[in-house]
Amino acid sequence: MDADEGLRRLRALGFADLDAQELWVHFDAAERRGKQGHGHARIPWLEELEGYDPSAEPSLLEEEAGFQRWHGGGAIGYLVLGRVVRAQLDSPPSQARLVVCERTFPTGMLGHHVRRLADGGLVAVLTATSPRRLGHPDGGPKLAGTNPLAIGIPSGGSDPIVADVSMGAITWGDVVAGLASADELVPFGAEQAHKAFALALGLQLIVDSLVRDDGHGAVLLVARPEADPVPALRELAGGVRLPGDG
Amino acid sequence: MDADEGLRRLRALGFADLDAQELWVHFDAAERRGKQGHGHARIPWLEELEGYDPSAEPSLLEEEAGFQRWHGGGAIGYLVLGRVVRAQLDSPPSQARLVVCERTFPTGMLGHHVRRLADGGLVAVLTATSPRRLGHPDGGPKLAGTNPLAIGIPSGGSDPIVADVSMGAITWGDVVAGLASADELVPFGAEQAHKAFALALGLQLIVDSLVRDDGHGAVLLVARPEADPVPALRELAGGVRLPGDG
Repeated sequence: MDADEGLRRLRALGFADLDAQELWVHFDAAERRGKQGHGHARIPWLEELEGYDPSAEPSLLEEEAGFQRWHGGGAIGYLVLGRVVRAQLDSPPSQARLVVCERTFPTGMLGHHVRRLADGGLVAVLTATSPRRLGHPDGGPKLAGTNPLAIGIPSGGSDPIVADVSMGAITWGDVVAGLASADELVPFGAEQAHKAFALALGLQLIVDSLVRDDGHGAVLLVARPEADPVPALRELAGGVRLPGDG
Repeated sequence: MDADEGLRRLRALGFADLDAQELWVHFDAAERRGKQGHGHARIPWLEELEGYDPSAEPSLLEEEAGFQRWHGGGAIGYLVLGRVVRAQLDSPPSQARLVVCERTFPTGMLGHHVRRLADGGLVAVLTATSPRRLGHPDGGPKLAGTNPLAIGIPSGGSDPIVADVSMGAITWGDVVAGLASADELVPFGAEQAHKAFALALGLQLIVDSLVRDDGHGAVLLVARPEADPVPALRELAGGVRLPGDG
Protein backbone atom coordinates (compact mmCIF):
# COMPACT_ATOMS: atom_id res chain seq x y z
CA MET A 1 0.00 0.00 0.00
CA ASP A 2 1.36 3.45 -0.85
CA ALA A 3 0.77 6.71 0.98
CA ASP A 4 -1.87 7.92 -1.48
CA GLU A 5 -3.99 4.81 -1.03
CA GLY A 6 -3.44 4.70 2.74
CA LEU A 7 -4.38 8.34 3.24
CA ARG A 8 -7.40 8.04 0.95
CA ARG A 9 -8.73 5.03 2.86
CA LEU A 10 -8.12 6.68 6.24
CA ARG A 11 -9.91 9.85 5.16
CA ALA A 12 -12.76 7.71 3.87
CA LEU A 13 -13.13 6.40 7.43
CA GLY A 14 -13.84 9.95 8.56
CA PHE A 15 -10.42 11.01 9.86
CA ALA A 16 -9.43 14.63 9.32
CA ASP A 17 -6.43 15.24 7.06
CA LEU A 18 -3.88 15.74 9.84
CA ASP A 19 -5.14 12.71 11.76
CA ALA A 20 -5.07 10.53 8.65
CA GLN A 21 -1.52 11.74 8.10
CA GLU A 22 -0.54 10.89 11.69
CA LEU A 23 -2.04 7.41 11.41
CA TRP A 24 -0.34 6.77 8.09
CA VAL A 25 3.05 7.85 9.47
CA HIS A 26 2.58 5.40 12.37
CA PHE A 27 1.53 2.44 10.20
CA ASP A 28 4.21 3.14 7.63
CA ALA A 29 6.92 3.44 10.31
CA ALA A 30 5.86 0.04 11.68
CA GLU A 31 5.91 -1.46 8.19
CA ARG A 32 9.41 -0.11 7.54
CA ARG A 33 10.65 -1.50 10.86
CA GLY A 34 9.43 -4.96 9.87
CA LYS A 35 6.54 -4.84 12.35
CA GLN A 36 3.93 -5.66 9.73
CA GLY A 37 1.43 -6.55 12.42
CA HIS A 38 1.35 -2.86 13.37
CA GLY A 39 1.74 -1.68 9.79
CA HIS A 40 -0.40 -1.20 6.69
CA ALA A 41 -2.54 -4.22 7.61
CA ARG A 42 -4.09 -2.04 10.29
CA ILE A 43 -5.92 0.04 7.68
CA PRO A 44 -8.25 -2.76 6.50
CA TRP A 45 -8.49 -3.72 10.20
CA LEU A 46 -9.65 -0.19 11.09
CA GLU A 47 -12.19 -0.45 8.27
CA GLU A 48 -13.80 -3.30 10.18
CA LEU A 49 -13.25 -2.03 13.73
CA GLU A 50 -16.23 -0.63 15.61
CA GLY A 51 -16.50 1.58 18.63
CA TYR A 52 -14.34 4.58 17.80
CA ASP A 53 -15.29 8.05 16.61
CA PRO A 54 -12.87 9.41 13.99
CA SER A 55 -13.78 12.98 14.88
CA ALA A 56 -13.64 12.63 18.69
CA GLU A 57 -11.16 14.75 20.60
CA PRO A 58 -9.32 13.38 23.70
CA SER A 59 -9.46 15.60 26.76
CA LEU A 60 -7.14 16.48 29.61
CA LEU A 61 -9.29 15.75 32.66
CA GLU A 62 -6.87 16.60 35.41
CA GLU A 63 -3.50 18.22 35.77
CA GLU A 64 -1.14 18.99 38.60
CA ALA A 65 2.66 19.13 38.91
CA GLY A 66 3.99 15.72 37.93
CA PHE A 67 0.64 14.28 36.84
CA GLN A 68 -1.91 14.38 34.03
CA ARG A 69 -5.05 12.37 33.44
CA TRP A 70 -6.45 12.14 29.91
CA HIS A 71 -9.58 10.48 28.56
CA GLY A 72 -9.84 9.21 25.01
CA GLY A 73 -13.44 10.36 24.70
CA GLY A 74 -14.14 7.90 21.91
CA ALA A 75 -11.09 8.78 19.84
CA ILE A 76 -8.91 5.96 18.60
CA GLY A 77 -5.94 5.20 20.87
CA TYR A 78 -3.26 6.01 18.29
CA LEU A 79 -4.53 9.58 18.11
CA VAL A 80 -5.05 9.89 21.87
CA LEU A 81 -1.38 9.06 22.40
CA GLY A 82 -0.51 11.37 19.53
CA ARG A 83 -2.20 14.28 21.36
CA VAL A 84 -0.66 13.23 24.68
CA VAL A 85 2.85 13.06 23.20
CA ARG A 86 2.46 16.48 21.63
CA ALA A 87 1.26 17.90 24.96
CA GLN A 88 4.39 16.59 26.70
CA LEU A 89 6.67 18.03 24.05
CA ASP A 90 4.87 21.39 24.15
CA SER A 91 5.00 21.52 27.93
CA PRO A 92 7.65 19.18 29.35
CA PRO A 93 7.64 18.42 33.06
CA SER A 94 9.91 20.29 35.40
CA GLN A 95 11.38 16.88 36.35
CA ALA A 96 8.93 14.05 35.70
CA ARG A 97 5.26 13.49 34.97
CA LEU A 98 3.03 10.44 35.08
CA VAL A 99 0.30 10.53 32.43
CA VAL A 100 -2.70 8.24 32.82
CA CYS A 101 -4.64 7.79 29.57
CA GLU A 102 -8.10 6.33 30.10
CA ARG A 103 -10.05 4.68 27.29
CA THR A 104 -7.04 4.71 25.01
CA PHE A 105 -7.07 1.81 22.55
CA PRO A 106 -5.65 0.61 20.21
CA THR A 107 -2.30 2.32 20.57
CA GLY A 108 -0.20 0.47 17.99
CA MET A 109 3.56 0.25 18.08
CA LEU A 110 4.38 1.87 21.42
CA GLY A 111 7.98 2.44 20.35
CA HIS A 112 6.65 4.99 17.87
CA HIS A 113 5.29 7.19 20.66
CA VAL A 114 8.33 6.98 22.95
CA ARG A 115 10.62 7.62 19.98
CA ARG A 116 8.83 10.91 19.34
CA LEU A 117 9.33 11.85 22.99
CA ALA A 118 12.99 10.79 22.96
CA ASP A 119 13.54 12.74 19.73
CA GLY A 120 12.18 15.71 21.66
CA GLY A 121 14.67 15.15 24.49
CA LEU A 122 12.52 13.30 27.04
CA VAL A 123 13.04 9.93 28.70
CA ALA A 124 9.77 8.05 28.15
CA VAL A 125 8.28 4.82 29.46
CA LEU A 126 4.94 3.63 28.13
CA THR A 127 2.64 0.66 28.52
CA ALA A 128 -0.88 0.01 27.28
CA THR A 129 -3.45 -2.70 27.82
CA SER A 130 -5.36 -4.71 25.25
CA PRO A 131 -7.81 -7.63 25.38
CA ARG A 132 -6.75 -10.49 27.66
CA ARG A 133 -4.89 -12.91 25.42
CA LEU A 134 -2.12 -14.28 27.67
CA GLY A 135 -2.69 -16.99 30.23
CA HIS A 136 -0.37 -18.44 32.84
CA PRO A 137 2.17 -20.73 31.14
CA ASP A 138 0.80 -23.62 33.21
CA GLY A 139 -2.69 -23.08 31.78
CA GLY A 140 -5.97 -21.52 32.83
CA PRO A 141 -7.94 -18.54 31.56
CA LYS A 142 -6.48 -15.62 29.62
CA LEU A 143 -5.59 -13.01 32.23
CA ALA A 144 -3.48 -10.28 30.63
CA GLY A 145 -3.10 -8.41 27.39
CA THR A 146 0.17 -8.58 25.50
CA ASN A 147 0.84 -5.21 27.21
CA PRO A 148 4.11 -4.00 25.73
CA LEU A 149 6.64 -1.95 27.64
CA ALA A 150 8.33 0.71 25.54
CA ILE A 151 11.29 2.77 26.73
CA GLY A 152 12.71 5.72 24.83
CA ILE A 153 16.06 7.23 25.79
CA PRO A 154 17.15 10.51 24.19
CA SER A 155 20.72 11.19 23.22
CA GLY A 156 22.28 14.43 22.13
CA GLY A 157 25.06 12.65 20.37
CA SER A 158 23.28 9.84 18.54
CA ASP A 159 19.96 8.24 17.70
CA PRO A 160 17.74 7.47 20.69
CA ILE A 161 17.59 3.96 22.10
CA VAL A 162 14.06 2.59 21.79
CA ALA A 163 13.17 -0.70 23.48
CA ASP A 164 9.65 -1.89 22.64
CA VAL A 165 8.85 -5.33 24.00
CA SER A 166 5.51 -7.09 23.88
CA MET A 167 5.03 -9.77 26.49
CA GLY A 168 3.62 -12.15 23.90
CA ALA A 169 5.72 -14.62 21.93
CA ILE A 170 3.97 -13.14 18.89
CA THR A 171 1.81 -10.04 18.59
CA TRP A 172 -1.91 -9.85 18.03
CA GLY A 173 -0.90 -7.71 15.07
CA ASP A 174 0.80 -10.80 13.62
CA VAL A 175 -2.51 -12.60 13.96
CA VAL A 176 -4.35 -9.65 12.35
CA ALA A 177 -1.83 -9.70 9.49
CA GLY A 178 -2.30 -13.46 9.02
CA LEU A 179 1.33 -14.15 9.94
CA ALA A 180 0.56 -16.38 12.95
CA SER A 181 -2.33 -18.21 14.58
CA ALA A 182 -3.98 -17.09 17.82
CA ASP A 183 -2.78 -20.32 19.50
CA GLU A 184 0.81 -19.14 19.23
CA LEU A 185 -0.01 -16.07 21.34
CA VAL A 186 1.48 -17.11 24.69
CA PRO A 187 3.88 -15.26 27.03
CA PHE A 188 7.37 -15.17 25.53
CA GLY A 189 10.27 -16.88 27.22
CA ALA A 190 9.70 -20.60 26.58
CA GLU A 191 10.69 -22.34 29.84
CA GLN A 192 10.79 -18.98 31.56
CA ALA A 193 7.47 -17.74 30.19
CA HIS A 194 6.31 -17.18 33.77
CA LYS A 195 8.53 -14.08 33.71
CA ALA A 196 6.82 -12.49 30.70
CA PHE A 197 3.46 -13.51 32.17
CA ALA A 198 4.31 -11.75 35.45
CA LEU A 199 5.36 -8.61 33.57
CA ALA A 200 2.20 -8.65 31.42
CA LEU A 201 0.01 -9.02 34.49
CA GLY A 202 1.90 -6.38 36.45
CA LEU A 203 1.65 -3.87 33.60
CA GLN A 204 -2.05 -4.70 33.18
CA LEU A 205 -2.67 -3.95 36.84
CA ILE A 206 -0.74 -0.68 36.80
CA VAL A 207 -3.13 0.59 34.15
CA ASP A 208 -6.22 -1.01 35.69
CA SER A 209 -5.34 0.48 39.12
CA LEU A 210 -4.77 4.00 37.84
CA VAL A 211 -7.78 4.51 35.56
CA ARG A 212 -11.13 5.70 36.87
CA ASP A 213 -13.07 4.68 33.78
CA ASP A 214 -12.58 0.93 33.47
CA GLY A 215 -11.34 -0.17 30.04
CA HIS A 216 -8.16 -0.41 27.99
CA GLY A 217 -5.78 2.42 28.70
CA ALA A 218 -2.19 3.53 28.68
CA VAL A 219 0.22 4.84 31.29
CA LEU A 220 3.13 7.05 30.27
CA LEU A 221 6.03 8.36 32.31
CA VAL A 222 8.09 11.24 30.94
CA ALA A 223 11.16 12.70 32.61
CA ARG A 224 13.91 15.16 31.82
CA PRO A 225 17.28 13.43 31.52
CA GLU A 226 20.17 14.51 33.71
CA ALA A 227 22.80 12.59 31.77
CA ASP A 228 23.39 11.15 28.31
CA PRO A 229 24.63 7.59 28.75
CA VAL A 230 23.97 6.58 25.13
CA PRO A 231 27.20 7.58 23.37
CA ALA A 232 29.36 5.66 25.87
CA LEU A 233 27.03 2.67 25.60
CA ARG A 234 27.27 2.71 21.81
CA GLU A 235 31.04 2.83 22.06
CA LEU A 236 31.08 -0.08 24.51
CA ALA A 237 28.67 -2.04 22.29
CA GLY A 238 30.93 -1.75 19.25
CA GLY A 239 29.03 -3.16 16.31
CA VAL A 240 26.24 -4.76 18.34
CA ARG A 241 22.78 -3.66 17.19
CA LEU A 242 20.98 -1.86 20.03
CA PRO A 243 17.20 -1.76 20.55
CA GLY A 244 15.42 0.53 18.13
CA ASP A 245 18.31 0.87 15.70
CA GLY A 246 17.16 0.82 12.09
CA MET B 1 21.01 -19.47 59.55
CA ASP B 2 18.62 -18.34 62.26
CA ALA B 3 17.67 -14.79 63.21
CA ASP B 4 20.02 -14.68 66.20
CA GLU B 5 23.05 -15.58 64.13
CA GLY B 6 22.00 -13.34 61.23
CA LEU B 7 21.43 -10.31 63.45
CA ARG B 8 24.66 -10.91 65.35
CA ARG B 9 26.71 -11.08 62.16
CA LEU B 10 25.02 -7.98 60.70
CA ARG B 11 25.65 -6.01 63.87
CA ALA B 12 29.25 -7.18 63.81
CA LEU B 13 29.53 -5.49 60.39
CA GLY B 14 28.68 -2.19 62.06
CA PHE B 15 24.96 -1.92 61.32
CA ALA B 16 22.79 -0.30 63.98
CA ASP B 17 20.17 -2.54 65.58
CA LEU B 18 17.23 -1.31 63.50
CA ASP B 19 19.20 -1.51 60.28
CA ALA B 20 20.43 -5.01 61.07
CA GLN B 21 16.80 -5.93 61.75
CA GLU B 22 15.67 -4.45 58.41
CA LEU B 23 18.39 -6.32 56.51
CA TRP B 24 17.57 -9.59 58.25
CA VAL B 25 13.86 -9.23 57.45
CA HIS B 26 14.76 -8.69 53.78
CA PHE B 27 17.15 -11.66 53.54
CA ASP B 28 14.84 -13.95 55.46
CA ALA B 29 11.83 -12.97 53.31
CA ALA B 30 13.86 -13.83 50.19
CA GLU B 31 14.91 -17.15 51.72
CA ARG B 32 11.29 -18.01 52.56
CA ARG B 33 10.18 -17.15 49.01
CA GLY B 34 12.73 -19.58 47.62
CA LYS B 35 14.96 -16.77 46.33
CA GLN B 36 18.06 -18.08 48.09
CA GLY B 37 20.25 -15.93 45.90
CA HIS B 38 18.83 -12.90 47.71
CA GLY B 39 18.57 -14.68 51.04
CA HIS B 40 20.81 -15.63 53.93
CA ALA B 41 23.77 -16.16 51.57
CA ARG B 42 23.95 -12.38 51.32
CA ILE B 43 25.25 -12.11 54.88
CA PRO B 44 28.60 -13.83 54.22
CA TRP B 45 28.62 -11.90 50.92
CA LEU B 46 28.24 -8.59 52.80
CA GLU B 47 31.08 -9.69 55.08
CA GLU B 48 33.34 -9.66 52.01
CA LEU B 49 31.81 -6.67 50.20
CA GLU B 50 33.73 -3.38 50.22
CA GLY B 51 32.69 0.16 49.53
CA TYR B 52 29.74 0.73 51.83
CA ASP B 53 29.50 2.50 55.16
CA PRO B 54 27.17 0.73 57.62
CA SER B 55 26.53 3.97 59.50
CA ALA B 56 25.97 6.23 56.48
CA GLU B 57 22.61 7.96 56.10
CA PRO B 58 20.96 8.46 52.67
CA SER B 59 19.79 12.00 51.94
CA LEU B 60 16.90 13.60 50.11
CA LEU B 61 18.68 15.96 47.72
CA GLU B 62 15.73 17.44 45.92
CA GLU B 63 11.98 17.46 46.24
CA GLU B 64 9.10 18.98 44.33
CA ALA B 65 5.53 17.86 43.63
CA GLY B 66 5.74 14.52 41.86
CA PHE B 67 9.50 14.12 42.21
CA GLN B 68 12.22 13.25 44.70
CA ARG B 69 15.94 12.73 44.25
CA TRP B 70 17.86 10.76 46.89
CA HIS B 71 21.54 9.94 47.24
CA GLY B 72 22.79 6.85 49.01
CA GLY B 73 25.71 8.72 50.54
CA GLY B 74 27.69 5.53 51.04
CA ALA B 75 24.87 3.58 52.67
CA ILE B 76 24.11 0.12 51.35
CA GLY B 77 21.35 0.05 48.74
CA TYR B 78 18.99 -2.15 50.75
CA LEU B 79 18.83 0.50 53.47
CA VAL B 80 18.62 3.40 51.02
CA LEU B 81 15.48 1.85 49.53
CA GLY B 82 14.26 1.09 53.03
CA ARG B 83 14.45 4.82 53.90
CA VAL B 84 12.92 5.80 50.55
CA VAL B 85 10.00 3.39 50.97
CA ARG B 86 9.33 4.68 54.47
CA ALA B 87 9.39 8.26 53.18
CA GLN B 88 6.74 7.42 50.55
CA LEU B 89 4.51 5.72 53.09
CA ASP B 90 4.91 8.62 55.54
CA SER B 91 4.16 11.19 52.88
CA PRO B 92 2.39 9.65 49.87
CA PRO B 93 2.12 11.64 46.66
CA SER B 94 -1.02 13.57 45.85
CA GLN B 95 -1.23 11.44 42.67
CA ALA B 96 2.16 10.11 41.63
CA ARG B 97 5.85 10.62 42.33
CA LEU B 98 9.01 9.58 40.55
CA VAL B 99 11.88 8.89 42.95
CA VAL B 100 15.42 8.77 41.59
CA CYS B 101 17.86 7.05 43.95
CA GLU B 102 21.48 7.74 43.12
CA ARG B 103 24.32 5.53 44.35
CA THR B 104 21.91 2.90 45.58
CA PHE B 105 23.39 -0.59 45.44
CA PRO B 106 22.89 -3.45 46.11
CA THR B 107 19.12 -3.37 46.49
CA GLY B 108 18.27 -7.07 46.83
CA MET B 109 14.90 -8.56 46.02
CA LEU B 110 13.04 -5.57 44.55
CA GLY B 111 9.70 -7.27 45.17
CA HIS B 112 10.35 -6.79 48.89
CA HIS B 113 10.35 -3.01 48.53
CA VAL B 114 7.29 -2.74 46.26
CA ARG B 115 5.41 -5.17 48.50
CA ARG B 116 5.91 -2.82 51.44
CA LEU B 117 4.55 0.04 49.34
CA ALA B 118 1.59 -2.03 48.10
CA ASP B 119 0.87 -3.14 51.66
CA GLY B 120 0.71 0.58 52.44
CA GLY B 121 -1.79 1.18 49.64
CA LEU B 122 0.47 2.50 46.88
CA VAL B 123 1.01 1.25 43.34
CA ALA B 124 4.78 0.89 42.98
CA VAL B 125 7.16 0.24 40.09
CA LEU B 126 10.86 -0.16 40.77
CA THR B 127 14.01 -0.95 38.85
CA ALA B 128 17.67 -0.89 39.85
CA THR B 129 20.95 -1.32 38.03
CA SER B 130 23.83 -3.62 38.84
CA PRO B 131 27.13 -4.50 37.17
CA ARG B 132 26.89 -5.21 33.43
CA ARG B 133 26.45 -8.95 33.16
CA LEU B 134 24.06 -9.37 30.20
CA GLY B 135 25.21 -9.18 26.60
CA HIS B 136 23.22 -9.23 23.38
CA PRO B 137 22.02 -12.79 22.69
CA ASP B 138 24.04 -12.76 19.46
CA GLY B 139 27.24 -12.08 21.41
CA GLY B 140 29.52 -9.16 22.19
CA PRO B 141 30.39 -7.32 25.39
CA LYS B 142 28.26 -7.29 28.54
CA LEU B 143 26.07 -4.20 28.24
CA ALA B 144 23.37 -4.31 30.92
CA GLY B 145 22.81 -5.40 34.48
CA THR B 146 20.17 -8.00 35.23
CA ASN B 147 18.04 -4.95 36.13
CA PRO B 148 14.82 -6.38 37.53
CA LEU B 149 11.46 -4.73 37.13
CA ALA B 150 9.23 -5.05 40.19
CA ILE B 151 5.58 -4.03 40.24
CA GLY B 152 3.44 -3.93 43.40
CA ILE B 153 -0.32 -3.56 43.19
CA PRO B 154 -2.29 -2.94 46.38
CA SER B 155 -5.67 -4.47 46.99
CA GLY B 156 -8.12 -3.70 49.73
CA GLY B 157 -9.74 -7.07 49.40
CA SER B 158 -6.80 -9.44 49.12
CA ASP B 159 -3.02 -9.78 49.16
CA PRO B 160 -1.17 -7.45 46.81
CA ILE B 161 0.07 -8.71 43.46
CA VAL B 162 3.86 -8.47 43.30
CA ALA B 163 5.64 -9.13 40.01
CA ASP B 164 9.43 -9.15 40.35
CA VAL B 165 11.23 -10.15 37.20
CA SER B 166 14.98 -10.12 36.60
CA MET B 167 16.01 -9.92 32.97
CA GLY B 168 18.60 -12.65 33.49
CA ALA B 169 17.89 -16.35 32.95
CA ILE B 170 19.39 -16.78 36.41
CA THR B 171 20.27 -14.17 39.04
CA TRP B 172 23.69 -13.05 40.14
CA GLY B 173 22.42 -14.03 43.56
CA ASP B 174 22.23 -17.62 42.30
CA VAL B 175 25.87 -17.33 41.35
CA VAL B 176 26.70 -15.81 44.77
CA ALA B 177 24.87 -18.69 46.43
CA GLY B 178 26.76 -21.23 44.33
CA LEU B 179 23.55 -22.41 42.65
CA ALA B 180 24.63 -21.58 39.10
CA SER B 181 27.70 -20.58 37.12
CA ALA B 182 28.31 -17.07 35.76
CA ASP B 183 28.15 -18.46 32.19
CA GLU B 184 24.47 -19.22 32.64
CA LEU B 185 23.77 -15.55 33.29
CA VAL B 186 22.27 -14.52 29.92
CA PRO B 187 19.05 -12.66 29.10
CA PHE B 188 16.05 -14.90 29.71
CA GLY B 189 13.75 -15.96 26.91
CA ALA B 190 15.75 -18.55 24.97
CA GLU B 191 15.00 -17.87 21.27
CA GLN B 192 13.39 -14.59 22.25
CA ALA B 193 16.18 -13.49 24.58
CA HIS B 194 16.50 -10.29 22.54
CA LYS B 195 13.32 -9.16 24.32
CA ALA B 196 14.75 -9.52 27.82
CA PHE B 197 17.98 -7.95 26.58
CA ALA B 198 16.06 -4.93 25.25
CA LEU B 199 14.21 -4.57 28.55
CA ALA B 200 17.43 -4.85 30.57
CA LEU B 201 19.12 -2.22 28.42
CA GLY B 202 16.11 0.09 28.47
CA LEU B 203 15.84 -0.11 32.27
CA GLN B 204 19.59 0.44 32.57
CA LEU B 205 19.34 3.61 30.51
CA ILE B 206 16.34 4.97 32.44
CA VAL B 207 18.47 4.90 35.58
CA ASP B 208 21.65 6.05 33.84
CA SER B 209 19.78 8.98 32.22
CA LEU B 210 18.13 10.18 35.41
CA VAL B 211 21.03 10.10 37.87
CA ARG B 212 23.46 12.99 38.22
CA ASP B 213 26.10 10.99 40.08
CA ASP B 214 27.10 8.21 37.73
CA GLY B 215 26.88 4.75 39.33
CA HIS B 216 24.39 2.04 40.15
CA GLY B 217 21.04 3.42 41.17
CA ALA B 218 17.33 2.79 41.39
CA VAL B 219 14.24 4.48 39.99
CA LEU B 220 10.91 4.14 41.76
CA LEU B 221 7.46 5.27 40.72
CA VAL B 222 4.71 5.43 43.33
CA ALA B 223 1.10 6.34 42.63
CA ARG B 224 -2.22 6.38 44.41
CA PRO B 225 -4.61 3.81 42.97
CA GLU B 226 -8.00 4.88 41.66
CA ALA B 227 -9.40 1.37 41.41
CA ASP B 228 -8.87 -2.09 42.87
CA PRO B 229 -8.75 -4.55 39.98
CA VAL B 230 -7.20 -7.37 42.02
CA PRO B 231 -10.28 -9.12 43.49
CA ALA B 232 -11.92 -9.48 40.05
CA LEU B 233 -8.63 -10.72 38.61
CA ARG B 234 -8.29 -13.31 41.36
CA GLU B 235 -11.81 -14.47 40.69
CA LEU B 236 -11.15 -14.73 36.95
CA ALA B 237 -7.88 -16.57 37.62
CA GLY B 238 -9.58 -19.26 39.68
CA GLY B 239 -6.87 -21.44 41.17
CA VAL B 240 -4.03 -20.07 39.04
CA ARG B 241 -1.11 -18.83 41.13
CA LEU B 242 -0.56 -15.11 40.57
CA PRO B 243 2.79 -13.28 40.81
CA GLY B 244 3.94 -12.76 44.38
CA ASP B 245 1.54 -15.26 45.94
CA GLY B 246 3.19 -17.26 48.70
